[in-house]
Amino acid sequence: MPQVLALAAPNATAPLARAFIPRRDLKPDDVEIDILYCGICHSDLHTARNEWAVWPTTYPCVPGHEIVGRVSRVGSAVNSHKVGDPVAVGCMVDSCQTCESCRMGLEQYCDNGQTIFTYNSPDPHGTAPTTYGGYSQAITVHQKFVLRVPPNLDLAATAPLLCAGITLYSPLRHWNAGPGKKVGIVGLGGLGHMGVKFSAAMGAHTVLFTTSENKIADAKRLGADQVVLSKNRAQMLAHNRSFDLIIDTVSAAHNLDNYLSLLRRDGTLVLVGAPDTPHPSPTVFNLLIPRRSIAGSGIGGIAETQQMLDFCARKNIVSDIELIRTDQINEAYDRLVKADVKYRFVMDMKTLN
Amino acid sequence: MPQVLALAAPNATAPLARAFIPRRDLKPDDVEIDILYCGICHSDLHTARNEWAVWPTTYPCVPGHEIVGRVSRVGSAVNSHKVGDPVAVGCMVDSCQTCESCRMGLEQYCDNGQTIFTYNSPDPHGTAPTTYGGYSQAITVHQKFVLRVPPNLDLAATAPLLCAGITLYSPLRHWNAGPGKKVGIVGLGGLGHMGVKFSAAMGAHTVLFTTSENKIADAKRLGADQVVLSKNRAQMLAHNRSFDLIIDTVSAAHNLDNYLSLLRRDGTLVLVGAPDTPHPSPTVFNLLIPRRSIAGSGIGGIAETQQMLDFCARKNIVSDIELIRTDQINEAYDRLVKADVKYRFVMDMKTLN
Repeated sequence: MPQVLALAAPNATAPLARAFIPRRDLKPDDVEIDILYCGICHSDLHTARNEWAVWPTTYPCVPGHEIVGRVSRVGSAVNSHKVGDPVAVGCMVDSCQTCESCRMGLEQYCDNGQTIFTYNSPDPHGTAPTTYGGYSQAITVHQKFVLRVPPNLDLAATAPLLCAGITLYSPLRHWNAGPGKKVGIVGLGGLGHMGVKFSAAMGAHTVLFTTSENKIADAKRLGADQVVLSKNRAQMLAHNRSFDLIIDTVSAAHNLDNYLSLLRRDGTLVLVGAPDTPHPSPTVFNLLIPRRSIAGSGIGGIAETQQMLDFCARKNIVSDIELIRTDQINEAYDRLVKADVKYRFVMDMKTLN
Repeated sequence: MPQVLALAAPNATAPLARAFIPRRDLKPDDVEIDILYCGICHSDLHTARNEWAVWPTTYPCVPGHEIVGRVSRVGSAVNSHKVGDPVAVGCMVDSCQTCESCRMGLEQYCDNGQTIFTYNSPDPHGTAPTTYGGYSQAITVHQKFVLRVPPNLDLAATAPLLCAGITLYSPLRHWNAGPGKKVGIVGLGGLGHMGVKFSAAMGAHTVLFTTSENKIADAKRLGADQVVLSKNRAQMLAHNRSFDLIIDTVSAAHNLDNYLSLLRRDGTLVLVGAPDTPHPSPTVFNLLIPRRSIAGSGIGGIAETQQMLDFCARKNIVSDIELIRTDQINEAYDRLVKADVKYRFVMDMKTLN
């Protein structure tokens, strides 16, 4: 089996460090990718530090699920990608492929629970105890889970689309964001800044909620029609019962009732961030009248991720990134905890050599 | 103004007692109803005892919003009801009638917040400080908020349809219960027993969740295809990820994650009961994967309530009731707190004389 260089967390408290990891020998349906860029997602940090009780980490852990690279080799049965193509891999690398959800292109919700995530999932090929992600030189993935990157997109700034992007694109589409709809995005971070860009590009009236006055100008530059300071009660009340959809990207525990109250009848508050401690319990009366919902949404399926990349190509949308070297990873993690990034770190994986 | 006999709570702790209350003089659009039967809803008790912080009670309080009677007089503009007709009044007696929700027949969600509930709402006619409900001899209601009772329905057993019935019928219709769908009903009380009847009559595979073994036979008699003892972990796990819709009628605070886990992708847990203390906060991961929702639903609109009564007439559905005299009201409240009723108390209002 090929060995490749990676950045691995040896345990929950040690910094990430260079390590060799195995990649499987090429199978007929496999695409081998020379990784150029990998985005840094907050989930990477949660997993590297074993912060999610529901999804414990196996070590060594190689995070990274916002992967952009070029095809270096293809298996004998690969017909959808060829050597040299710019391609991408997101949060999943396999699923059962037979259940209703998989057949509908919603592999992230595989009814058999067999979604194989890009890192920290049991490795069905037995190459290693768990799957290893994109903080590495190369990755080998079944062709169905490899996305085409349209030629006009900047490759580094495309990487965060594979998680931050699709995490917002999918619920915006599913809950019908578009002309005539009023859509709120809570939080202007890696996820939220993509939410603002997508919601605006889809034609919805887009409102960004933030706790920070110094994000107002930036939110408008990214496409927000209005910005609401969520700690300002009067500003919040002015939007009472007016939103069709609010997508809440904040993963720290916070009061959901403040946002539920802003939804109109049949409006939905969609949570896309998973807090490590629960949100305060929302008031049931706020759901009963006027028939509101709280929903969750997890990334997006493979077909929808490709649709998103094609939408980005048409609308000229990528992520706002800060490009760093791989030896800056631990510093980047520390800054991520302080939300000190506009709006996504992307590593230049060539600096790993 | 006419004065009529009623049962009123003078304050939060005293028992309900007979009292005279005013009813407004007949207006052109008004229907005066000689009340024959009034169901006893848990909301009546919560309001009489001032147990809902979000909706404080004004005293004296005359509860009752499951009202069946006969038209005794009509105003000059009334064209939809005539003297002698069997009619019903539910939880609402007015709304703005102009907003989008009202125009769509969803008066309970009036966008202007002007739904006038049958009791304990500010009285727009100024007859009294608040509206007085159906624990009385007669009531005067705008014709638009008066329902027709189909002739084949038992009048006493029809009363609970006006709140318990519509509270379940509306979400079952809104979330598309029917053939090919698997629907859960949590709790076999006044609400739950109507849920089981309606879900079965709509053709859904219907599962009743209960904590009580001695409700199994009754649930099956009412139409449940399966009964699950919710405290039995193995029985619960056997239904993992299989429900399209679960309607939770339990108003005591309880763990929602146990039910969320049983929903399939895009499934919805609908809360129709409002606890006086919040439910433990549900786990966000359980919402994210596989894109589940928690929603609330409050009663149903006037047009839908009529539709439900007509459905009941076709399907021969009424509530299972225990008919009591008005002088048994306080005893009935004590039994209601202990859930000691199968499945709804209905008062014979003629016993008030």
